[in-house]
Amino acid sequence: MPGQNIFYAQSGGVTSVINASAAGVIETACAHSDRIGRVYAGHDGILGALTEDLIDTSAESDATISALCHTPGGAFGSARYKLRSLEENRTEYERLIEVFKAHDIGYFFYNGGGDSADTCEKVSHLADEMGYPIQALHIPKTMDNDLPATDCSPGFGSAAKYTAVSIREASLDLASMYPTSTKVFILEVMGRTTGWTAAAGGLASASDNTGTDPNIVLFPEVVFDPERFLVQVDECVKKCGYCTIVASEGIRHTDGQFVSEAGARDVFGHTQLGGVASTLARMIHARLGYKNHYAIADYLMRSARHIASTTDVEHAYAVGRAAVEYALAGRSGVMVTIERESDDPYRWSLGSAPLADVANGERAMPRDFISSDGFHISAKARAYLTPLIAGEAYPPYIDGLPQYAQLAKKRVARRLNTSFKL
Amino acid sequence: MPGQNIFYAQSGGVTSVINASAAGVIETACAHSDRIGRVYAGHDGILGALTEDLIDTSAESDATISALCHTPGGAFGSARYKLRSLEENRTEYERLIEVFKAHDIGYFFYNGGGDSADTCEKVSHLADEMGYPIQALHIPKTMDNDLPATDCSPGFGSAAKYTAVSIREASLDLASMYPTSTKVFILEVMGRTTGWTAAAGGLASASDNTGTDPNIVLFPEVVFDPERFLVQVDECVKKCGYCTIVASEGIRHTDGQFVSEAGARDVFGHTQLGGVASTLARMIHARLGYKNHYAIADYLMRSARHIASTTDVEHAYAVGRAAVEYALAGRSGVMVTIERESDDPYRWSLGSAPLADVANGERAMPRDFISSDGFHISAKARAYLTPLIAGEAYPPYIDGLPQYAQLAKKRVARRLNTSFKL
Repeated sequence: MPGQNIFYAQSGGVTSVINASAAGVIETACAHSDRIGRVYAGHDGILGALTEDLIDTSAESDATISALCHTPGGAFGSARYKLRSLEENRTEYERLIEVFKAHDIGYFFYNGGGDSADTCEKVSHLADEMGYPIQALHIPKTMDNDLPATDCSPGFGSAAKYTAVSIREASLDLASMYPTSTKVFILEVMGRTTGWTAAAGGLASASDNTGTDPNIVLFPEVVFDPERFLVQVDECVKKCGYCTIVASEGIRHTDGQFVSEAGARDVFGHTQLGGVASTLARMIHARLGYKNHYAIADYLMRSARHIASTTDVEHAYAVGRAAVEYALAGRSGVMVTIERESDDPYRWSLGSAPLADVANGERAMPRDFISSDGFHISAKARAYLTPLIAGEAYPPYIDGLPQYAQLAKKRVARRLNTSFKL
Repeated sequence: MPGQNIFYAQSGGVTSVINASAAGVIETACAHSDRIGRVYAGHDGILGALTEDLIDTSAESDATISALCHTPGGAFGSARYKLRSLEENRTEYERLIEVFKAHDIGYFFYNGGGDSADTCEKVSHLADEMGYPIQALHIPKTMDNDLPATDCSPGFGSAAKYTAVSIREASLDLASMYPTSTKVFILEVMGRTTGWTAAAGGLASASDNTGTDPNIVLFPEVVFDPERFLVQVDECVKKCGYCTIVASEGIRHTDGQFVSEAGARDVFGHTQLGGVASTLARMIHARLGYKNHYAIADYLMRSARHIASTTDVEHAYAVGRAAVEYALAGRSGVMVTIERESDDPYRWSLGSAPLADVANGERAMPRDFISSDGFHISAKARAYLTPLIAGEAYPPYIDGLPQYAQLAKKRVARRLNTSFKL
């Protein structure tokens, strides 16, 4: 008799390597078919569990599952859907367990950030309480790299590589043309409260940060001081002829206000940001008169599988594989972590952290990762970041375009007569 | 006795492959050292000729010249500097010829767009008139693909590939998350008056354009009708759940006004554009209420050597090589052109066009390259565009970052005692 089934769900903002984690789960479970049944993926993440909309991954070909390793986005659908607390909405948790029970699911693998670690833990507790124990394991994912308890998070290395490559290339553009054209270029990158992705842009410069591009990095961890910033830009243009800037969307003024707010809020109550680059551009033009241009990376940076880092893809696959191995070893209530053993040569292994240490936490960049003037990365940051963008894990191409996995998404037959209103 | 020297200059907005044309010139000239002297590159393009600031490319190592083939930006410096008409400022043209004479320059190779073809022609005429004949050859370059008389322009294929790859990847992001997150995504691309680069985004969709991403392409060639656009977006979201859009920065309203104008003007008197994506995003949010995100490619798309197309790199090198060959054959007053022999398999050869047919001209997309509803590309456009993005000509990487050529830029000793005020 085969073992129980795995329920796997993707959560929150997708990355260019989250599907590699899915492949790690599916291929490893398949290799242990004597002890594990099938891997059911939630259609649209946790919503698939609540609505009993499950994808049977065993219906996909081996080639398709393997192609997940080079496919960005969330192949089974991801959701920005935060379950409320047990006190506020116990029904949702009970529904999850009802669905898990109906489909003989013994393992809940949640692939996401801090919010999903919280959900993962609650499901685990309630399942015990309801007499249907489930092994709940969290698989880390976030391009923001802000998950605590792990050295880094899959998804970050590739977003970091995108940022560093993009600013290196755009800086060459400025360097070519500044005498008669644009003097200041701003690349706005995602990163709500932590500056990890912006920091990665600093890798494009020489190790002493002097006179090389990008010239300025703006981190949410450093209060934005318009006057100091403008002096820095002006000095840079006067010295080098031009100035290239990587700006995190999450930079704030002294009073805590975002430099630019779109005004809308997402379902988690977070302010939805945008427009930092245009705000800085207007400021520079008005005060210094320099012609400037800006690019906004937005979703391109978390989807850019074409420039993913090999380290990141390997991490992503490994944490998926480890979730299955931990489950087989009887473990539950933990997140798979990436542990760094050395920077250079880069060596890493897998570990684990209790979900309570991960849930809703957030890891800002350490202050000593930022140069003393607050406008660049330190040597320590450089040592940390460099191995994470290493290697080019190119996808296959046909007719000049990357070929990404296309799933059949065969649904598992429903076993419950009940529906569930989200 | 060796032959006369070549003066090579880069002009206008740089591309990710313009330096491959430089490599084509330099390596081919070197192979004919019995008949050609040295290749002097203008520091900051034509400004280098006016100020007698010439770079001796023979001082660079062979490896460095070869590395130009994978280096974006303008390695010798490019300039947005349009010489006025002969009547308005004959002094500038006379100065060019004075410098050419002083440095035994017999060949003027100008690597740029329509404006530089115009300059190239004027220099050629005046040189004859002044009794110092010069062979003037134009090497095409523009990411906009709007040069007349050539099937395509080097620089376009790679910008096109960047657009197609980026929208394919970002569309997977939307497809993963639309039930609980962003419903509309806009990628704003450069393209002042022609929609070639926006059109390239359409390659990411299936050949019948139905139900695939991107869902909408907005071309400057089609008058922007806000009402029709909003209906299209709404229908797409209702049918597919989300909508992805590639928008050219140059789209205009019925009255000819740009949908968004930054207000500033560049040195050629062109309006400097920006902010189309944010304008569309506000419109969609206000009228349809859909959560949306946008990315602005800006300089990233013309610098993205990391995702350059092999076809484009080959074209760029070939037009540089051909300029030398044409010069050796005694030709002058022409632009090297790329001639298409067949779409599939793609076959091409080199030709030439008189500078008068190129100067200040502009090639809009043919109307039959756009679908009848005006929101997508036609099969004809697809057949034209596909070979131009074919192949991945990856640069070398060290520590996760592309390694681009770093030039010594050794200057040629000045021979004139005069200075020139720009």
